[in-house]
Amino acid sequence: MTTTPHTLKADSDLEAYMADLGARARIAAKALRLASSAQKVKALTAMAANIRSSEAAILAANKIDMDKGAAKGLSAAMLDRLKLDSGRVEGIAAGLDAIAALPEPVGSIDESWSQPNGLKFNKVRVPIGVIGMIYESRPNVTADAGGLCVKSGNACILRAGSESANSSGAIHKALAAGLEDAALPAGAIQLIATTDRAAVGHLLGGLNESVDLIIPRGGKSLIARVQKDARVPVLAHLEGLCHSYVHQGADVQKALAVVMNAKLRRTGVCGSTETVLIDKAIAQSFLPKLAAKLHEAGCEMRGDKASQRLDANIIPAADNDFFTEHLAAIINLRIVGGIDDALAHIDTHGSGHTDCILTEDADAAARFLRDVDSAIVMHNSSTQFADGGEFGFGAEIGIATGRLHARGPVGAQHLTTYKYTVHGDGHTRPA
Amino acid sequence: MTTTPHTLKADSDLEAYMADLGARARIAAKALRLASSAQKVKALTAMAANIRSSEAAILAANKIDMDKGAAKGLSAAMLDRLKLDSGRVEGIAAGLDAIAALPEPVGSIDESWSQPNGLKFNKVRVPIGVIGMIYESRPNVTADAGGLCVKSGNACILRAGSESANSSGAIHKALAAGLEDAALPAGAIQLIATTDRAAVGHLLGGLNESVDLIIPRGGKSLIARVQKDARVPVLAHLEGLCHSYVHQGADVQKALAVVMNAKLRRTGVCGSTETVLIDKAIAQSFLPKLAAKLHEAGCEMRGDKASQRLDANIIPAADNDFFTEHLAAIINLRIVGGIDDALAHIDTHGSGHTDCILTEDADAAARFLRDVDSAIVMHNSSTQFADGGEFGFGAEIGIATGRLHARGPVGAQHLTTYKYTVHGDGHTRPA
Repeated sequence: MTTTPHTLKADSDLEAYMADLGARARIAAKALRLASSAQKVKALTAMAANIRSSEAAILAANKIDMDKGAAKGLSAAMLDRLKLDSGRVEGIAAGLDAIAALPEPVGSIDESWSQPNGLKFNKVRVPIGVIGMIYESRPNVTADAGGLCVKSGNACILRAGSESANSSGAIHKALAAGLEDAALPAGAIQLIATTDRAAVGHLLGGLNESVDLIIPRGGKSLIARVQKDARVPVLAHLEGLCHSYVHQGADVQKALAVVMNAKLRRTGVCGSTETVLIDKAIAQSFLPKLAAKLHEAGCEMRGDKASQRLDANIIPAADNDFFTEHLAAIINLRIVGGIDDALAHIDTHGSGHTDCILTEDADAAARFLRDVDSAIVMHNSSTQFADGGEFGFGAEIGIATGRLHARGPVGAQHLTTYKYTVHGDGHTRPA
Repeated sequence: MTTTPHTLKADSDLEAYMADLGARARIAAKALRLASSAQKVKALTAMAANIRSSEAAILAANKIDMDKGAAKGLSAAMLDRLKLDSGRVEGIAAGLDAIAALPEPVGSIDESWSQPNGLKFNKVRVPIGVIGMIYESRPNVTADAGGLCVKSGNACILRAGSESANSSGAIHKALAAGLEDAALPAGAIQLIATTDRAAVGHLLGGLNESVDLIIPRGGKSLIARVQKDARVPVLAHLEGLCHSYVHQGADVQKALAVVMNAKLRRTGVCGSTETVLIDKAIAQSFLPKLAAKLHEAGCEMRGDKASQRLDANIIPAADNDFFTEHLAAIINLRIVGGIDDALAHIDTHGSGHTDCILTEDADAAARFLRDVDSAIVMHNSSTQFADGGEFGFGAEIGIATGRLHARGPVGAQHLTTYKYTVHGDGHTRPA
């Protein structure tokens, strides 16, 4: 319950250590809630400067993680996510500067109205409180999450993946120095100083009402554990099983460019298209052209029988392929009878992340945008635009695939909640 | 998985029965999501008409509940909450008509914006899906909850208290007939047809991903059980430990009228004031006048030592009184040194429901409205305005005291979530 440095050792008395983190976070949340916009900007700018001046220490810490990871036999993809270099460190600092420059999310008024009795109402944005963030390999999430939480007036407790423990620790040290420069409490951004998995259990238990929200960011098994064990609300990022639907009214050239980008710009991001649905009426003029481009780009094509008939390079898709987020240069292809078929396919197979219709037919587009029940529904654009930066949110802490509180890209503004202020002049309520 | 009437018996195979309710609700939610505003209004209007034409049956069912309740020894207050008469049945019908007349919450656009690349974005209100509602004695909640869910495009599964089982069943029958009149599926509003408490456990377990949100409405033990056992998000209504703070800059006459109303208009509602904090600087001119009025009105006064010195009828308050939602003609009184003291008291003792400052000092009011972290923060008005109707929401399903998704009065508009629609013209994302 103090703001002095930790004296508890994380590994000798984990429960007391975690309870102390929670108590510090709760106190810091109050300071952050009442902090001025200028004070938060000062902290974020100092954090960015400290990241830049700590580059050597951050890269040295990252080398330890990389060496351990290589010895442990981490995959090339995981090692790439873990790796920092001078450019990536500058990217982390620039990200913090960008968060500093975002509009202030706290105190903005969503709505104002009056009642006939003269009472005036405002719905005002306020911070959530304490956010527990659990994430895997990418060490930059330490800075993104810490920065977005400070901007939105929330304290955070960060749990980095064990493979990035040293890198995350070095980044956290730079953030903590930035908080100090702006006279904000160290409890505003705390990094759990142990790789003991039991720490996650304590965090999910809510640390005696010290945690208001958990945001997990990682693979399916992490998310499943969080959703099973959390005793506090969770803003989860599940998978992105995204569809691009080529309607019979599509412009073929436009649709070709969009689908190629939606699948192949980057195959490892959650907004990449996994399945292309193509109207029967346009399949003969569209699919062979698409298949030629995909084949040339080295993308494996798995299709239903009707699509296989139109291109020899399309191999048979298993039923399960249409439920699989490949995150690789593999695409599912299916010919559908029309928009009803497409909507039913997405309803059954989609993950509620991002789905797009390609068409010049305004009525079909309007129906698709209304009827598809996903966080992001698009018309004539690449599903790879599913990203907080592309939405203009400046930075994102993840893409929420649940239905409550926030859906889609979660930026600083979505890490707030609201309260009502009511303004009277001696108003009493009649019996 | 069908829309035919139930053939499963709730009491012989509860798990299969509950799973079937969930599956029906999920199918109905899709129909409701896509229903037109006119179709929902038609259903709500028909529901109101059916309530009126079923008055005799509803009152007969209520008599059974009342007789059972009296035999069981329910308190007078509980029996009063349970009791229906002709006026209350008309109130239920009028409530449904009022919900029908509310603005359509689905499809409204919160925000629209464009990015420099020409992509256009809309943030659009959509239904949540399936809502599980668990409530105690008042049978009118069956109609309020069913009506608000239909208006907001959500299917609901209702669990009424066992003491109101017959009344709720008769009301539900009238609602079901209204759904049928508007060609909406019966799965849109389902009432759990058993008083077996294990049914609640299944509902809280989420019925195999068929429930998106649980709303409990009842006493502390119910809410505690729901928060402990729920595997899906919960919108909880905890207690209302509300404060009225008489600042030294208060207008004495205005403050007297507001505080009397805040405490005594109705003592059993969650928005009633439990504790009055009074600035030392105004205590001598204000407190004796307030104490005389409270005493005359038969309100028991429990105060700290400083307040006891100012009026002989004030008895000593125990520490615990300041943490107690009396819901009775008992008031806590405390003299504070100034606004810092008052804010600290509310921070420690409040429940985050509703708190008010009485003052003519604009700076003090602004600070209180900013610094108090409650769902509703008021200036110069009775805390008893904490009510969806008084906010202009038309009807409410409860007052949320959590921090996520919705806070304060929960009306039809708060039973929605959002999605983004993104409008391009062949937009591809650069590498």
